[in-house]
Amino acid sequence: MTRFALTVEFDGRPFMGWQRQDHGPSVQQAIEDAAYAVTGEDVVVHAAGRTDAGVHGLGMRAHLDIAKPIAPFRLMEALNARIRPNPVAILACEEVSEDWHARFSCLSRHYEYRIVTRRAPLTWEKGLAWRLSGPLDVPAMQAASAHLVGRHDFTTFRSAHCQAESPVRTLDLLEVVQHRERISVFASARSFLHHQVRSMVGCLSLVGQGKWAPEDVRDALAARDRAALGLNAPPDGLFFLRADYPQ
Amino acid sequence: MTRFALTVEFDGRPFMGWQRQDHGPSVQQAIEDAAYAVTGEDVVVHAAGRTDAGVHGLGMRAHLDIAKPIAPFRLMEALNARIRPNPVAILACEEVSEDWHARFSCLSRHYEYRIVTRRAPLTWEKGLAWRLSGPLDVPAMQAASAHLVGRHDFTTFRSAHCQAESPVRTLDLLEVVQHRERISVFASARSFLHHQVRSMVGCLSLVGQGKWAPEDVRDALAARDRAALGLNAPPDGLFFLRADYPQ
Repeated sequence: MTRFALTVEFDGRPFMGWQRQDHGPSVQQAIEDAAYAVTGEDVVVHAAGRTDAGVHGLGMRAHLDIAKPIAPFRLMEALNARIRPNPVAILACEEVSEDWHARFSCLSRHYEYRIVTRRAPLTWEKGLAWRLSGPLDVPAMQAASAHLVGRHDFTTFRSAHCQAESPVRTLDLLEVVQHRERISVFASARSFLHHQVRSMVGCLSLVGQGKWAPEDVRDALAARDRAALGLNAPPDGLFFLRADYPQ
Repeated sequence: MTRFALTVEFDGRPFMGWQRQDHGPSVQQAIEDAAYAVTGEDVVVHAAGRTDAGVHGLGMRAHLDIAKPIAPFRLMEALNARIRPNPVAILACEEVSEDWHARFSCLSRHYEYRIVTRRAPLTWEKGLAWRLSGPLDVPAMQAASAHLVGRHDFTTFRSAHCQAESPVRTLDLLEVVQHRERISVFASARSFLHHQVRSMVGCLSLVGQGKWAPEDVRDALAARDRAALGLNAPPDGLFFLRADYPQ
């Protein structure tokens, strides 16, 4: 068996999420079906993060084990040829050691959440950003985000369906960047709770709209209570950017 | 009658082009149908440029005349509400004098053509960029573009269906900009011939791939012959950015 690490881009709009589901298409299944078509082997693809329905990937990392001898470049080309018409692309493929694991070896995960502030509906980027009637108070959002960075109990920002054992996470980065009517929130951590990025962005949007003060985010965090959450942002604007590994 | 100037964004993928057609949907019809729903009036919408099927608009300008008294902001909101689910959005609406014409008053038109250089297929931006394998020689493309800037007979870069009286145009800008695997070609002129931007980009791509020398673009221009055209780029990557008017 040879283990291959993949870098995967996908448009989350037609999928029920990353993880294989009985009731609809998933990114995992699209790749596994392509791998079966290429190798005749029933492979399982493991990812750095299991994104929700409608969430996108620009540089998701994943791995799979294949018995058939095949060069990484040939595997990538063959997977891309077979994965169509699913909007999933293998951007890179390399051979890794058998103890390399896309999920468990991952040191850091990086997300971007894209907001477009305008009254008019979105056209070409419908489903690729969250539209909010603008403008938003970006300095206030930046002040609020500072309350979330660091090691905290993120129970407030955690889905009821979250399966993590502990609600404690260390948020390394939460940065709000504006370019005209586009606002991006960048989030980095070793790992995130289920819905954590969307929940943080939801609360930051309330601050941007003046409905919450920056300190209300601090208080929501301190409450350690999902009921204190102001808003969970929709999946549309969320992109898994990249994952870091040793070396 | 009051004349309103519109700024329009649209995703060109589902449309036969800007201009109203008998055999399929058009951006013009989407706006005219919305205007009828709002006012009960049969209006004609005139645009700065009549884009082809699959070409997109980020800041297209257009105008229409309406008899019913209505404020510009209310008209914009009502058009956006009625235009759904078409991927067309009115970004701005203002009252203008009756001699203001989106097409004939226009002083300059600006396009961007987006290329993504990679082997893997596109996912979320399928239909929104032209994918080309492998790196392109951007300095060579920049050298080639310099041969096209200025006042020339652009017969080589003109569709057989072009209805313009003269093939002479003054190209004010043709700039090739690279950011990692993304290359944009920006083109500005008072007006363009039919397919001119796509034809210029098609030849620049041949230069980028090393199939043409930069001087081959100069020779193709000098030939004043459509048969000398190397390649017409697909509509996917073309965006009408904006149009300039007096004051």
